[in-house]
Amino acid sequence: VAWRVLNGAGVNAKRGVFLAIAAVLWWWPAPEGLTLEAWRLFVIVASAIGAVVANALPLLTASVLAVAATVLGRVLTPEQAYAGFANGTILLIVLAFLVARSVLTSGLGVRIGHWMVGRFGRSAIGLSYSIFLVDGLIAPAFPSSTARSGVIFPMALSLANAAGATPEATDRRRLGTFLMFSGIASISLSSALWLTAMAGNPLGAELARHAGVEIAFGSWLVASSVPTLTAMLLMPLLLRRCIGPEVHETPEAPALARRALAALGPLKYQEKVVIAAFGGMVGLWAVAATLSIDSTAVAFLGLAVLLLTGVLTPADLKKEGDVLATFIWFAVLFALCGSLNELGFIAYLGSALASVMGRWGAPAAYVMLISAYVVLHYMFVSQTAHLLALFGVFLDVGIKTGLPAALLAYQLLFANNYFAGLTPQGSSANVLFASSGLISQRDLYVLGAIATGFNMAVFLIVGTPWLWLITR
Amino acid sequence: VAWRVLNGAGVNAKRGVFLAIAAVLWWWPAPEGLTLEAWRLFVIVASAIGAVVANALPLLTASVLAVAATVLGRVLTPEQAYAGFANGTILLIVLAFLVARSVLTSGLGVRIGHWMVGRFGRSAIGLSYSIFLVDGLIAPAFPSSTARSGVIFPMALSLANAAGATPEATDRRRLGTFLMFSGIASISLSSALWLTAMAGNPLGAELARHAGVEIAFGSWLVASSVPTLTAMLLMPLLLRRCIGPEVHETPEAPALARRALAALGPLKYQEKVVIAAFGGMVGLWAVAATLSIDSTAVAFLGLAVLLLTGVLTPADLKKEGDVLATFIWFAVLFALCGSLNELGFIAYLGSALASVMGRWGAPAAYVMLISAYVVLHYMFVSQTAHLLALFGVFLDVGIKTGLPAALLAYQLLFANNYFAGLTPQGSSANVLFASSGLISQRDLYVLGAIATGFNMAVFLIVGTPWLWLITR
Repeated sequence: VAWRVLNGAGVNAKRGVFLAIAAVLWWWPAPEGLTLEAWRLFVIVASAIGAVVANALPLLTASVLAVAATVLGRVLTPEQAYAGFANGTILLIVLAFLVARSVLTSGLGVRIGHWMVGRFGRSAIGLSYSIFLVDGLIAPAFPSSTARSGVIFPMALSLANAAGATPEATDRRRLGTFLMFSGIASISLSSALWLTAMAGNPLGAELARHAGVEIAFGSWLVASSVPTLTAMLLMPLLLRRCIGPEVHETPEAPALARRALAALGPLKYQEKVVIAAFGGMVGLWAVAATLSIDSTAVAFLGLAVLLLTGVLTPADLKKEGDVLATFIWFAVLFALCGSLNELGFIAYLGSALASVMGRWGAPAAYVMLISAYVVLHYMFVSQTAHLLALFGVFLDVGIKTGLPAALLAYQLLFANNYFAGLTPQGSSANVLFASSGLISQRDLYVLGAIATGFNMAVFLIVGTPWLWLITR
Repeated sequence: VAWRVLNGAGVNAKRGVFLAIAAVLWWWPAPEGLTLEAWRLFVIVASAIGAVVANALPLLTASVLAVAATVLGRVLTPEQAYAGFANGTILLIVLAFLVARSVLTSGLGVRIGHWMVGRFGRSAIGLSYSIFLVDGLIAPAFPSSTARSGVIFPMALSLANAAGATPEATDRRRLGTFLMFSGIASISLSSALWLTAMAGNPLGAELARHAGVEIAFGSWLVASSVPTLTAMLLMPLLLRRCIGPEVHETPEAPALARRALAALGPLKYQEKVVIAAFGGMVGLWAVAATLSIDSTAVAFLGLAVLLLTGVLTPADLKKEGDVLATFIWFAVLFALCGSLNELGFIAYLGSALASVMGRWGAPAAYVMLISAYVVLHYMFVSQTAHLLALFGVFLDVGIKTGLPAALLAYQLLFANNYFAGLTPQGSSANVLFASSGLISQRDLYVLGAIATGFNMAVFLIVGTPWLWLITR
């Protein structure tokens, strides 16, 4: 109820409420077992993330305000508060955003899409599978799932249009819904498949490291492969059954795609450079751990190659102002949440919750933690904010309850991706599909609940024994 | 001659030459007294800056390539190479770029311009002084002299047009030249006046700190005030004598400006917010050292206020992709040049040069160092690149020759600003004025040499005793 009232209020009223709460808590004495710094840092982070969740502040504004308050309030030193900007993981994301742009500007993304449809586009279910396949294959090179939606959405839309599904065509409405939601479900699963397929994944892996779980590109893939591929294989069948598209066969789509592909002509110079640059980066990333090559430096090298060859130009980079905004809030929240951990707050909160959960036994706690983590995504508009707010606490509680750290860490990190389709605003990667006019607001919520529930079932039933096996 | 050949060659040939030289020097044994890391870091930094100076690579590309080579070549650890991104000074510049945008978007910059012309615009020399006055007053809030030129240029251009100087009007050509070059000269001097008036200044202050010279906002202003204000007072008279504008009196300009000011109406909400935000920031910056408040956190707070009030919006920030590019090359070069110093390279080079200069005696070395530093700006397209390449070495040589560190540091830092007008490409702040059509390419070079030579004379004759007095 309090939540509804808060959501109904105007933005300024909401901000006032958060400011008042934060001011009161700031002067409140720290609970026993916590230092004043840890308590006040919690107040800052909780108000900032709370204000974002309640739509009172954009993420950037909340982060900028939080870091100012942290340093000016002498909760952290400037060095601690700004450390995130020099963190290799965060720089890697920033560089990946810049590098990923070349897939779009070179036209390579569209070409891959046409090629796949030419092979797999004979039926509605084939079109859906081709979305999952293309998306799954390009995902590791797209750490921004939002950027990836910029490739997958035009592809899915052109598939839908080729099969006669437009906002005006009342007799193809469910086919359009089927293909659009395939896109949303695909991106949420392809993000779970690869460490580098969603901006928050490496961050989550970094946070898991604090709990003693080492996650690299290869170990993530091994862990995610079985449950994610199972869900990817079954999801189109589930969606076809739930949605019931009017048309099952689309024999004309492959020919259309092959014609579009032929019209593109042979690979352009720019596309070849992008293939070479990404091939080189993926190759170096694959051997990075073995040869102790720094992954971020590899991304710097890839960016340098794209700049040297003129595939990316300064004019392209001038359009990337939102990457700077992402860099700022990401670096700030990373440093503040990391310090919250270092100051002992997460451990404190975890042991408090664990003392409650300890009474239930580990299996019940395991299912409870994962389903609570998923259901709470109704409150979040960003997977990364969700991760920053809850991942550390949930992992710590589970460990205190006696659950294996690696098992729970992987389950929560995968959940952090597959719940992205829960609501239309649950990930900015959904936005393009949701605004296509081919899927209703109600369908988005109903299908979001069904698909996310199904994913959770697959990851619990298939994923648990698999993760148990490989992390022992 | 080698230089001319190099400049005449195509970009790819130039890149090949730099790559070949860098590869040979990379495998060359380190000179005695230097570690292999120090030598190889020098090879990377020198090739990167050399390629920029020779126009073979843009600054961003050179920096990205350099940091990749540094880490992949195991010259520095990733932590050392990326440390610049979390440096408070560099973050301050990035934030200042973002914050400065609000002066433009709110319309406050134009209003200040009109107000000043209304007061001082009665004659050609009065218009010129009004440019110097407005520029000198707004400069401390504009750490990007290029951004400042975006405010001063439209003002100077509207002054020129109001006085009848357009590219078509042959009888007002020299008046136009007079006002345009007043803009260039003004920005180069206002940048010398304030620590926060040019992006490279805080960087230079940071580099000077390595040599034991502590420079803060206030101490910079005290040191710069006497020579800079002297040059500012005399420069319009010098330019009027050299250029000889056709018109000396412009009695209609003040009325025009007052009418334009009246047309703007009362201060808008956004302008008031900007005034309050900048007033607050300048106030906090002024007491920052005393109360040990972190200057960067103050800038974060200012940005938060502008975002909270909606004066800056996410859409405004999306246009700031070039700030991200600046952030990247700045942070990279800062860290690499800083490490060059830490690895002992600068000290090594300095002592080698000093052993030559030591034979001349300190006064001759003083004049030689400063004039060489100024003349070498013919080779540079960026004040900051010049600073990064030469400031540390020149300072070190001077110190080894027995010159007082603070005296020489200030002289070089001021020179780094007042030489900006030497060539049209000597600072990107010149670009708008140079491309106005009111000043010829030849005049730009002739006036650049005269004005820079005059500045150097003022700073040597007036600045030396003043700096001697206050730094003893």
